Amino acid sequence: MRLCRFQRADKVEFGFLIDDETLVPVVDVAHAIGIYEVPAETLLDLLPGGDLKHVTAKLESSITPEIIDEHKVATSSVKLLVPIAVPGKLILLAGNYADHVAERGGIAEERANTFPYLFMKPLTTLTHPGDPIRIPAVSPHEIDWEIELGVILGKTCFGVTAADALSYVAGYTVINDVSDRAFHPNPGRKTRPKDAFFDWQHGKWHDTFCPMGPCVLPAYECPDPQNLRMTLTVNEQVEQDASTGEMIFPVADIISFVSQFVTLHPGDIIATGTPAGVGKAKGRFLKSGDLVTAKIEKIGALKNPVA
Amino acid sequence: MRLCRFQRADKVEFGFLIDDETLVPVVDVAHAIGIYEVPAETLLDLLPGGDLKHVTAKLESSITPEIIDEHKVATSSVKLLVPIAVPGKLILLAGNYADHVAERGGIAEERANTFPYLFMKPLTTLTHPGDPIRIPAVSPHEIDWEIELGVILGKTCFGVTAADALSYVAGYTVINDVSDRAFHPNPGRKTRPKDAFFDWQHGKWHDTFCPMGPCVLPAYECPDPQNLRMTLTVNEQVEQDASTGEMIFPVADIISFVSQFVTLHPGDIIATGTPAGVGKAKGRFLKSGDLVTAKIEKIGALKNPVA
Repeated sequence: MRLCRFQRADKVEFGFLIDDETLVPVVDVAHAIGIYEVPAETLLDLLPGGDLKHVTAKLESSITPEIIDEHKVATSSVKLLVPIAVPGKLILLAGNYADHVAERGGIAEERANTFPYLFMKPLTTLTHPGDPIRIPAVSPHEIDWEIELGVILGKTCFGVTAADALSYVAGYTVINDVSDRAFHPNPGRKTRPKDAFFDWQHGKWHDTFCPMGPCVLPAYECPDPQNLRMTLTVNEQVEQDASTGEMIFPVADIISFVSQFVTLHPGDIIATGTPAGVGKAKGRFLKSGDLVTAKIEKIGALKNPVA
Repeated sequence: MRLCRFQRADKVEFGFLIDDETLVPVVDVAHAIGIYEVPAETLLDLLPGGDLKHVTAKLESSITPEIIDEHKVATSSVKLLVPIAVPGKLILLAGNYADHVAERGGIAEERANTFPYLFMKPLTTLTHPGDPIRIPAVSPHEIDWEIELGVILGKTCFGVTAADALSYVAGYTVINDVSDRAFHPNPGRKTRPKDAFFDWQHGKWHDTFCPMGPCVLPAYECPDPQNLRMTLTVNEQVEQDASTGEMIFPVADIISFVSQFVTLHPGDIIATGTPAGVGKAKGRFLKSGDLVTAKIEKIGALKNPVA
């Protein structure tokens, strides 16, 4: 069952997401079956790799229609939060779907002929479900969307094979790698060969440019992360519609690649690249008042207004 | 007076660094003058911008030769630690000294004609003073050094001017931006235009590739961070010898630039680029058994063996 982190009054809690409109607080399920303490400090504790994963399994299997009826909370009545408050790393992939590489003017190579392009976003980009993506005053004109499958690590790994890699995953979430395609500091500058790369990377770093959520699909409920439909809409118009099966490097290969040179820890997050359909290819960009909905099958819909 | 974080037995403590061989624990100074609690959770609390900065000032002014004599601890008898355990961001600059740009084959532009090139390292690169820089098995041949002045933010800032920027600094430390110049995953790949950039960036991410320390020079003791001599030696041979005055973008301009699009928080760290003298330009690289010493005037010497 999907797990989420939410805020009610001033308190941060964890919940089972029953459907997109309904959650049941983890502590209420526990109390209902006579467990009086669930000492989870982060959602990771409850997920695969976490110390309390056996408690989670017990709670999940104990959820009855009666428990749901008695303890259900409308997701609209609370504030859903980014599932991992402080990821140790927020790593993303550039160009991991052939159609997106093509729409940005490149030529995608087969996996065997290439390697994953990684970059990072600062944690100040993290944005809760429902919170606004803020158009930056310094560069407001080409703010673009990128739906991505987010992988949350559950166990420490280094040098793992692709065959073993998925056993280190805690779960999956939805990420919107919001991107400023026109960031161009010091417009009167003399052009240097690397300017375009750094503009591209800096344009990923604006505050609020990494919405994440609304929940985590535990890894044991998603043995094959390469078969999930992903759609992104802006004001209900479909902009991206693809499958995670189209990734050039699938999740297992990405984790294996990163772990060859960077130790991954529980809570580290890897966003796995975006499919075709970004605004830049169509000359359309986000503007104040838009609503962006990034939805991945089995996980849920991450909705953010634009301000 | 310089402040440090150190470990004695299993306990993490804070200290005033009297000289490179001697520290006095903050709590001992406090007790000596009748303050029975210094509730610092991180070194930031004691630095400019921190809640306890006034306590720090009182303690500093109370340190007498008698207190030092009674409470001094040899730095060699404890383990000095990275001063900020978990920076929110670890941002670095590429190409911020003209001589280094030239030795890497580029042409440096004047500040007015360009903008700072930023990138990030994952926190798994952080390495305590004295701990080894580990040559990665996947790419052992061109591991290089880069001494850099590290700036630690003490207050939240966004959109600050260069004129105001230094008032947001908590202090300064020494960083070694260790770099793998030859990282080249999938050697049989077909070359794509951006390969060189991503290899360069990925080669900065190996575990242990960001030694930091040994202490923090509080900002009030360094009103002009652009006049500090910096020297890096490998096994006592001088490899880099320059002044922070040679930066293309000085500290104030860097903070102002970043803060135009990224909110900076206390504990965020910006490494300000390296001067000429890196190994790549000389065909010399780090090997197991080397000792790297990165020293910046008024801050101290950051020493790391290579393993």
